[in-house]
Amino acid sequence: MAFEKMIKNAFDESRNNCRFGDTLEEIKEIQDYIKNAEKIYIPNKDGVKVEVLNKVLNEYGLPQAEILQINTNTADTNRIPALAKAYMALDQSECDLIIARGRLGIPGSGSLLIFIDNKGRILTAGMSPSHVIHQKSLEEAVYEEAVEALEKIGFEKVI
Amino acid sequence: MAFEKMIKNAFDESRNNCRFGDTLEEIKEIQDYIKNAEKIYIPNKDGVKVEVLNKVLNEYGLPQAEILQINTNTADTNRIPALAKAYMALDQSECDLIIARGRLGIPGSGSLLIFIDNKGRILTAGMSPSHVIHQKSLEEAVYEEAVEALEKIGFEKVI
Amino acid sequence: MAFEKMIKNAFDESRNNCRFGDTLEEIKEIQDYIKNAEKIYIPNKDGVKVEVLNKVLNEYGLPQAEILQINTNTADTNRIPALAKAYMALDQSECDLIIARGRLGIPGSGSLLIFIDNKGRILTAGMSPSHVIHQKSLEEAVYEEAVEALEKIGFEKVI
Amino acid sequence: MAFEKMIKNAFDESRNNCRFGDTLEEIKEIQDYIKNAEKIYIPNKDGVKVEVLNKVLNEYGLPQAEILQINTNTADTNRIPALAKAYMALDQSECDLIIARGRLGIPGSGSLLIFIDNKGRILTAGMSPSHVIHQKSLEEAVYEEAVEALEKIGFEKVI
Repeated sequence: MAFEKMIKNAFDESRNNCRFGDTLEEIKEIQDYIKNAEKIYIPNKDGVKVEVLNKVLNEYGLPQAEILQINTNTADTNRIPALAKAYMALDQSECDLIIARGRLGIPGSGSLLIFIDNKGRILTAGMSPSHVIHQKSLEEAVYEEAVEALEKIGFEKVI
Repeated sequence: MAFEKMIKNAFDESRNNCRFGDTLEEIKEIQDYIKNAEKIYIPNKDGVKVEVLNKVLNEYGLPQAEILQINTNTADTNRIPALAKAYMALDQSECDLIIARGRLGIPGSGSLLIFIDNKGRILTAGMSPSHVIHQKSLEEAVYEEAVEALEKIGFEKVI
Repeated sequence: MAFEKMIKNAFDESRNNCRFGDTLEEIKEIQDYIKNAEKIYIPNKDGVKVEVLNKVLNEYGLPQAEILQINTNTADTNRIPALAKAYMALDQSECDLIIARGRLGIPGSGSLLIFIDNKGRILTAGMSPSHVIHQKSLEEAVYEEAVEALEKIGFEKVI
Repeated sequence: MAFEKMIKNAFDESRNNCRFGDTLEEIKEIQDYIKNAEKIYIPNKDGVKVEVLNKVLNEYGLPQAEILQINTNTADTNRIPALAKAYMALDQSECDLIIARGRLGIPGSGSLLIFIDNKGRILTAGMSPSHVIHQKSLEEAVYEEAVEALEKIGFEKVI
């Protein structure tokens, strides 16, 4: 029930013009949700991204994720392909947390790595420019996006 | 017509399993769209973010934006508040480009600065953690998000 | 787990060009979900619509709904205000089923009554033209939309 | 500019708690937009629906639509497949009006015929139950959905 109350409170604050940015308690709730996730899925065709993401989750003392084998090609017709992949996993499986990676917007806009909860709400995210801009390997880009997503909500490396 | 053809091509490549990431031509199209924008709006209540964003646009040799005064408080009930603000501007005004800033997802998830075109398609974006995490001033955070968004699609400072 | 498997199967059929429309089993799953809902919320400011909706649910032998008091005015800035109201309820409460009513699209497009599950997926819906077109009372319009939504998925009156 | 002003006004009314439903002027704006559309697309693989829709448009004295050949199978992974088809057409072509038909929500939820403008805003819609419920032919179902969508916004047959 934690997120529901938190979202209700934040919304009431916004309505009443007394919202002054995110609080540490809110960030702590997101951390707790991720720490306690029992089933984490990464929708994907192959396992490369999953290996890198599990390496990062491990470095931050977080539970490991599993691959959810879905052909996510079709997500590219969506306005936010990365989010469309996450929703495909949400709608076709039961889990607590989904980590999906895909294009941010139109072709050329780069990539987005997104964490959503079991209702499809966005918890955190990391982004990279297109490969032709950053020239990094896929592994490196995914690694850095995951670190960005976790550190953004206050997680620190434990290894 | 440029984006329409580009999106169609990229979609056909995805369907046929021959899409190998964003191309320089696609990034060039996004750059041209932004360079040639004649009316750029930033939906906002006050002018602080607009000043910072115009400073950045100027540093990258890009056209200046105007404030579109909308009370965007209500966007906070959306799944992606930053995008909801951008769509409020899109639906209530005529312009080529909208730059909107708001929360990325649930309370605690930090902020998102997003560029959308005249049909609501995402061109680029920048993100920051919550203020309680990064401890930067609003001006500094907006500045860095805008620089991230522009450099991600290959723009370079001209000043 | 029912919907997840069903959605996965239907998606696989679509991909393989062997999807020939909705099946009776799929409709039966939706019926079972609604019949077995333990907590049904109707996001609303006042109780008029809730009374009418509960009358309809009762006539079809279905469990009763409760009002979820949220100020849903802000939903009108969304592309699909009815769905935005449903998502506000989804994000701010714990329940199995949400029945929300609001505008279908832009001003003038009439109203939409929508049923979503605990992950935000659309189960069924009913629609009405604007009041200035149909000239019916609010009670009558809501009643007919609810009947449309339930009969569309094969429910029959038991009273 | 008509819709932009109209949406802004309606939104201001909602915020100030003085919105009392859609007005005849708003409905008239939607009618004018459809009457004056110069390029109308129907995204589809084959031409059956297009023929029926053009028959209806003709009966109501409205301009004819063209087929936009897109493989829209992939839309079925979306939360609102009918809307996803409409957006695929919006993003891959230049036109004033798009009429798309697809599933309303999850498998079993029936079909939705939707009219969107050149920015993706919903103007009107019609719905049918699944074929296994209504037992009508495809032609008949599409015909009735189109009539519902047009009469809902005050159009009348001229033939």
